[in-house]
Amino acid sequence: MEKRPLILITNDDGITAPGIRHLIEAMNELGDVVVVAPSSPQSGMGHAITVNNTLFVEPVNIDNGPQIEYSCSGTPADCVKLAVNELLNKKPDLCVSGINHGSNSSINVIYSGTMSAAVEAGVEGVKAIGFSLLDYSWNAEFDHLKEYIKRIAQNVLDNGLPNGVVLNVNIPKSKDKTFNGIKICRQARAFWEEEFDKRVNPHGREYYWLTGKFVNMDKGEDTDEWALAHNFISIVPIQFDMTAHYFIDDLNNWEI
Amino acid sequence: MEKRPLILITNDDGITAPGIRHLIEAMNELGDVVVVAPSSPQSGMGHAITVNNTLFVEPVNIDNGPQIEYSCSGTPADCVKLAVNELLNKKPDLCVSGINHGSNSSINVIYSGTMSAAVEAGVEGVKAIGFSLLDYSWNAEFDHLKEYIKRIAQNVLDNGLPNGVVLNVNIPKSKDKTFNGIKICRQARAFWEEEFDKRVNPHGREYYWLTGKFVNMDKGEDTDEWALAHNFISIVPIQFDMTAHYFIDDLNNWEI
Repeated sequence: MEKRPLILITNDDGITAPGIRHLIEAMNELGDVVVVAPSSPQSGMGHAITVNNTLFVEPVNIDNGPQIEYSCSGTPADCVKLAVNELLNKKPDLCVSGINHGSNSSINVIYSGTMSAAVEAGVEGVKAIGFSLLDYSWNAEFDHLKEYIKRIAQNVLDNGLPNGVVLNVNIPKSKDKTFNGIKICRQARAFWEEEFDKRVNPHGREYYWLTGKFVNMDKGEDTDEWALAHNFISIVPIQFDMTAHYFIDDLNNWEI
Repeated sequence: MEKRPLILITNDDGITAPGIRHLIEAMNELGDVVVVAPSSPQSGMGHAITVNNTLFVEPVNIDNGPQIEYSCSGTPADCVKLAVNELLNKKPDLCVSGINHGSNSSINVIYSGTMSAAVEAGVEGVKAIGFSLLDYSWNAEFDHLKEYIKRIAQNVLDNGLPNGVVLNVNIPKSKDKTFNGIKICRQARAFWEEEFDKRVNPHGREYYWLTGKFVNMDKGEDTDEWALAHNFISIVPIQFDMTAHYFIDDLNNWEI
């Protein structure tokens, strides 16, 4: 009998989010699933870890299925650390994070709790993928994603990934639930142009809400933004060696 | 009269930390300084941003000097966003973050609030440097760092940095307050081997404290860890295009 892979699942929208429930359903068809996910939403947490506070973890049973589930008081990165180092008795064959309700393409990767979980798994030597759907709605449609997600996960299980690389998968919102295919991409150069909405509270004190609009400066047709705008699922291989190797020689010429 | 550069200062240890006070003192000698820093410590916050909560900012006067200072309820990345987009009436010529009480070398860069501020500045098109001292003590010695920090900052002001690159500067703890020099490095391959300290609270509920030991798997003499262990100040150029470009061709060969 073939050995089924052990698959760790987490996310940043919280363990009850529809996105992770659909991911669990898909992964149950590929392997033995253990879920360790935040008890509450953690969006915008970046790669936060809980060093100055306690972490609570408890077994939960949210819906039927063969998966084992734990709810954790921490961040997505905490969930992966706890799973790999404490809760699981062997290293998982794959860690999948998501399906995020909203985009993690281009520069969003640096703010993303979903991707921080995938990166943390990569740091711990576990193959990892973050999945995100470009639809912020809690009631987003996920059913039509299952075959694509399974196919990408199976490819990672079969082919592996180099040390230090994880995959950032983003999926366009498609009205007719079909895609033009899957494209391997680079991260587009983009940023958020912030606008701070300044208000005054009932006690006369000023405060701000962070808002902003997304600005893509990158016209390249090899980017994730281009792929998503043209109804392709984008896959960007992400590395956590952040060294700008190409700039080292220049820096060595500085008189510092 | 020569125009003095506008220098934005932030950190993640909080606006009253000795590290940022020393950084302000050094930068006052190079330019016009505006400080926008968290009102409370934010260590381990990674690149968190405050999207679901209000942000409070207030002018403060912590110690004497020509600098203008604001205390902010948000994360280091929030501070930079607020400064660049709301508080300052022109784009700063330089953003410096720190001096962090503790290392942000190698893999620590992904967990670091100090570096997330520098990265955020880079994303906003501002030249940026994060400074960290390998001494967690609140009473760490900083005086002997001033000349090095000024020299590195002046070099960035004079030479600029490529779009998409910021500098991660780490400084060893030196007993005799001297260094063997400054080395341009790559980020060492390293990780934290977590150990979770499991306890039971007074109400009988289990909880964990995250602890761990740092494991450097990288024997390279061109790494930041090597430099720091040999009493050099390390400078790693960091990029936030996280694409693993070298793996794109391989991925294109997958039957996905």
